[in-house]
Amino acid sequence: MTGTVHGVGLGPGAADLMSVRADRLVRGTRHIAYFRKAGRMGQARKIVDGMLRADVVEIPMDYPVTTEIPLEDPRYAATLSGFYEEVTAPLRALAEAGEDVVVLAEGDPFFYGSFMHLYTRLAPFVPVRIVPGITGMTAAWAATGAPITWGDDVLTVAPATLPEAALTARIAGTDALVVMKIGQNLDKLKRAVELAGRMGDAWLVEYAAMAGERVRKLAEVEAAPYFSIALIHGQGRRP
Amino acid sequence: MTGTVHGVGLGPGAADLMSVRADRLVRGTRHIAYFRKAGRMGQARKIVDGMLRADVVEIPMDYPVTTEIPLEDPRYAATLSGFYEEVTAPLRALAEAGEDVVVLAEGDPFFYGSFMHLYTRLAPFVPVRIVPGITGMTAAWAATGAPITWGDDVLTVAPATLPEAALTARIAGTDALVVMKIGQNLDKLKRAVELAGRMGDAWLVEYAAMAGERVRKLAEVEAAPYFSIALIHGQGRRP
Ligand SMILES: C[S@@+](CC[C@H](N)C(=O)[O-])C[C@H]1O[C@@H](n2cnc3c(N)ncnc32)[C@H](O)[C@@H]1O
Ligand SMILES: C[S@@+](CC[C@H](N)C(=O)[O-])C[C@H]1O[C@@H](n2cnc3c(N)ncnc32)[C@H](O)[C@@H]1O
Repeated sequence: MTGTVHGVGLGPGAADLMSVRADRLVRGTRHIAYFRKAGRMGQARKIVDGMLRADVVEIPMDYPVTTEIPLEDPRYAATLSGFYEEVTAPLRALAEAGEDVVVLAEGDPFFYGSFMHLYTRLAPFVPVRIVPGITGMTAAWAATGAPITWGDDVLTVAPATLPEAALTARIAGTDALVVMKIGQNLDKLKRAVELAGRMGDAWLVEYAAMAGERVRKLAEVEAAPYFSIALIHGQGRRP
Repeated sequence: MTGTVHGVGLGPGAADLMSVRADRLVRGTRHIAYFRKAGRMGQARKIVDGMLRADVVEIPMDYPVTTEIPLEDPRYAATLSGFYEEVTAPLRALAEAGEDVVVLAEGDPFFYGSFMHLYTRLAPFVPVRIVPGITGMTAAWAATGAPITWGDDVLTVAPATLPEAALTARIAGTDALVVMKIGQNLDKLKRAVELAGRMGDAWLVEYAAMAGERVRKLAEVEAAPYFSIALIHGQGRRP
């Protein structure tokens, strides 16, 4: 009997925003794997703190240090690809030995997630099941206290890693907007929002549904952490 | 002491895809309100079946029959606006009398949701708290067994209620796509996907995470229920 690898969406941060299904899997599992930066606990592992079985076996997957290799360099992709191959092997071996494994994913596993890189490498060989999760952006618009889309509104989700001109066009051409992966791209993003003529409507949400949640006008923000999302609310038809 | 109105996202359909926070609120509440079509149980109420307190007070909110009034007709908006005013009154009165009320919302309350129309009418007067939920689209891409966005992919979410030319442009101009509110708009949507040259990559997911979940190539679909979502997966950078 082959075991199953569960890619479990944890939601945006607060432990009680995990689904009931995720909560049960996390509490019940013998084997639990998660990504982290070497030397850090990792956000996913933090969310499940205090929920794990006493006899749980933890499988941390430490990202290789890649900051000295530029993203465009082919060695960047090669290093990451090697890393994903390497961390996939023990998960596959456990499933083949009949054990279930829970792999933690922040937000939803299939939405810009690292788990996706394991999924494509595991799914041809062993059963993989996905538990969808509340995305970070869903918690971000909840934090602003205003709905994101009404009626016929179009929502565009764009990563701030795009070139400035592409970002500007996306921001100018949508009703509602979500921008992910801000961090080092904050200045570029602010220029793009300004050029698109929408700075007055733009918000930045840091640490949505986590300790430290904060909502500010984007115009006032000088630095953004990894966990931050910019957004503009749609203003569509409403009776 | 004023009570709180909780706008509770139930997630896409399966009861165990509700968040732990939503699950607790639904099981604990004395007053529970939900939209439905007159004479139907309503999807939101169905999801929580078997979870409610024995002494729960149910507040069904029956949509006025609007099918004979065209959407463009000002009487359509007037009828709905009157309806939302009317159903808001008892919720506000309960909160003002110190009672908490749970209002059920399918998926996430702030994402194209009916609850938003109550929110704007209640929030100026009584405390309203939002519990974010897993959106229908998140369950839809999970059902297809493939991630929706990678790397620098842009995701566009568009309602099929848009005019055909606008839909076509949106579909041609994005990496990843989600189309909501299909139903009667299926033929228009299929023409738009065809014109955008993307029919080969398009999927239709019916009843994601509900009984009757079904995933087909959009090209093969002749009729779509209210609960259906079309999507095209992004193919962005991946190491
Ligand atoms: C690699 S993506 C992962 C997205 C995740 N799978 C999800 O469903 O939200 C990481 C980006 O998600 C965003 N993010 C995720 N959770 C967040 C939260 N709770 N608050 C703010 N931003 C968040 C940030 O923009 C961050 O740079
Ligand atoms: C009024 S919108 C509400 C969206 C909801 N608030 C959410 O977060 O998904 C209704 C549309 O959502 C989509 N939808 C919501 N849940 C779904 C599900 N479980 N399966 C398929 N489609 C769904 C359909 O396109 C439907 O026409």
